[in-house]
Amino acid sequence: MLELEKLVTHTDRIIARARRPGVIRLQWGEPAFPPPRAVREALLEALDLGLTRYTPPAGLPELREAIARKLREKNSVMCDAREVVVTAGGTAALHFVFRLLARGGAVAVQDPGWFAYPAIIRVAGAEVVWVPEEKLGYEELERAREDAKRKGLDLRVVVVNTPSNPSGTMFSRETLKEVLDFAEDRGVWVVSDEVYEDFVLDGTHVSPASISRERVFAVYSLSKTYALTGLRIGYVVAPDESWARRLTIMQLHTYVCPTSFAQHVARVLIERRVEREYMSEWLSTIRKNVELTERALRERGIEWRRPKGGIYAWFPLPGQDSAEFARLLLEKMSVAVAVGKDFGTRWDEWIRVTTAVPSDTYEEGLRRIFKLYDELSRR
Amino acid sequence: MLELEKLVTHTDRIIARARRPGVIRLQWGEPAFPPPRAVREALLEALDLGLTRYTPPAGLPELREAIARKLREKNSVMCDAREVVVTAGGTAALHFVFRLLARGGAVAVQDPGWFAYPAIIRVAGAEVVWVPEEKLGYEELERAREDAKRKGLDLRVVVVNTPSNPSGTMFSRETLKEVLDFAEDRGVWVVSDEVYEDFVLDGTHVSPASISRERVFAVYSLSKTYALTGLRIGYVVAPDESWARRLTIMQLHTYVCPTSFAQHVARVLIERRVEREYMSEWLSTIRKNVELTERALRERGIEWRRPKGGIYAWFPLPGQDSAEFARLLLEKMSVAVAVGKDFGTRWDEWIRVTTAVPSDTYEEGLRRIFKLYDELSRR
Repeated sequence: MLELEKLVTHTDRIIARARRPGVIRLQWGEPAFPPPRAVREALLEALDLGLTRYTPPAGLPELREAIARKLREKNSVMCDAREVVVTAGGTAALHFVFRLLARGGAVAVQDPGWFAYPAIIRVAGAEVVWVPEEKLGYEELERAREDAKRKGLDLRVVVVNTPSNPSGTMFSRETLKEVLDFAEDRGVWVVSDEVYEDFVLDGTHVSPASISRERVFAVYSLSKTYALTGLRIGYVVAPDESWARRLTIMQLHTYVCPTSFAQHVARVLIERRVEREYMSEWLSTIRKNVELTERALRERGIEWRRPKGGIYAWFPLPGQDSAEFARLLLEKMSVAVAVGKDFGTRWDEWIRVTTAVPSDTYEEGLRRIFKLYDELSRR
Repeated sequence: MLELEKLVTHTDRIIARARRPGVIRLQWGEPAFPPPRAVREALLEALDLGLTRYTPPAGLPELREAIARKLREKNSVMCDAREVVVTAGGTAALHFVFRLLARGGAVAVQDPGWFAYPAIIRVAGAEVVWVPEEKLGYEELERAREDAKRKGLDLRVVVVNTPSNPSGTMFSRETLKEVLDFAEDRGVWVVSDEVYEDFVLDGTHVSPASISRERVFAVYSLSKTYALTGLRIGYVVAPDESWARRLTIMQLHTYVCPTSFAQHVARVLIERRVEREYMSEWLSTIRKNVELTERALRERGIEWRRPKGGIYAWFPLPGQDSAEFARLLLEKMSVAVAVGKDFGTRWDEWIRVTTAVPSDTYEEGLRRIFKLYDELSRR
């Protein structure tokens, strides 16, 4: 039996302890902005429409239509509503896809990668193999496949997270093409995690399924774009209708369907493309926070590759153990950050800081982080 | 790999086809009453409180406290909030418990039993063994255990559903005591599904965990009591805090947490015990519909044991194949009912009809059911 307690990360512990008042919370994947005003009206509308009952297990038909239209127009993913399944957040979509495709096998994850991937993958019954993010491509995936084979595991799925958490990397069309070619040649599946698609700071977001849908399960979420992590609405577009049906059956027998009125809120936000106006203000806040980070790092001679997308600053604190640093920081400075060593194999001295926070809060958080860092470095 | 398509039941197909307008829907487990008025206010309050973010993965602390208080006062289950996990409906609670406790083993389910149990259990990685409901007790569970053993499976869990779906059976304290004794002696777990706890027509609902909590995971839901199947809020009280923590980790890595504002709605409904006033009207409607059913059956000389609880009328239509009858009924009479043969091993000629429906609708539905039955019987 899987020892669930062992899946609790350093960062999970920081998140739990950071719930007390007065903490500057830079530890989690949650924009600290107020959600769009349209949410209130949409919720009331849902009640007026009587949307308080079970929905079809794949989601409200009107929402699936709105999502398919959005995918075609915004992501150039030429899909049909019948290939879309609405899920209780992006995590649920990942869970179902891993459980369906990878159980008993291995999933390749980019290193550094979101600290929850290993736990989600293991709870779904599969194992993780890491792929250095900067080398992602055909050759490195072959290596990962052999690595899995040595452990007696079939590589079944490759996760591509673009823009990525934590590093803000955005993969080019060429890199994505290589991943898709590998997937086709080796008969593995690609899970494209695009929950940060709207947080583009530099460049253009390319959806892998816009290149080829054949082996791609593409996962999206409303959590980040609309600062609505509590809505628990995400969606997945499967390679075809029969895969969507399998995911739907799994969802039906896991929690039936996502919350009905949350689905209506999602429909309104997506149909009206609320993010176009809503996000512009927050993107400039994020840019400003990236700027502040860069300055603080430069002053200390720490080299940094600015994020091209996403909502994080991900950087090393040379000489510091990230778990110990985060623990001290929360205790002494009341600032919560995510612990680098939870994000892969090479990040013992790194931390992740959420940039989707009002700049005055962020600046104060950063000041305290570097106050502690400077103190500890002088010893 | 589990063939998910094979989990689709006759009743699932009826549910999907019954979505077209004009159908009298007596097929599903969903009261057709308007939800309590307090829901609207509670939703707006949730927004005002900023409850649009991730909640702790076990649920909002205030909600867990309210649930624990309710369990102590209403169910005589002497638990602590730390032993309670808020889930995305009762189904999610069942899913997690089965996945945690029964994977690779067998689950005993009363026959007749809810048509979704076998699928939920199989998706969670376990197998079903049936136990005749009327014989539920120590001896019959021993038989089920041997039955499982012959198939090479360990019996790990016994499900007790009281009041039951579909038959409306309410188990006595004595019967429940036998089940608990068996569980203790044989080291199996009891999953007590009490989602119909508030639908008592005759007698008193006894919560197994009020007798002994040691081996009981008790599952509850807001879906039926408040006619809010779309809310997706249920909860489970585990035997102790460490089991609650394991369920929480599983939930965290399946969909993070239930919808935040739905949790606040649940808190308001439970804290105010809204069901006390809300349900009395609907209970008399259900009683009236039971009466109407009894009359129709008596006229045709069909023997019937009236339900003691729950929201269903469950009866035989002698000489009819339930799947074929339900198909014809939907096609010719625009009435949807659940198909008996999905509910266990002995119910080919039975159907399940939802009584939690306004009486004029119910009466018309019943009229059409027996019109078809009489026509087919005359042939």
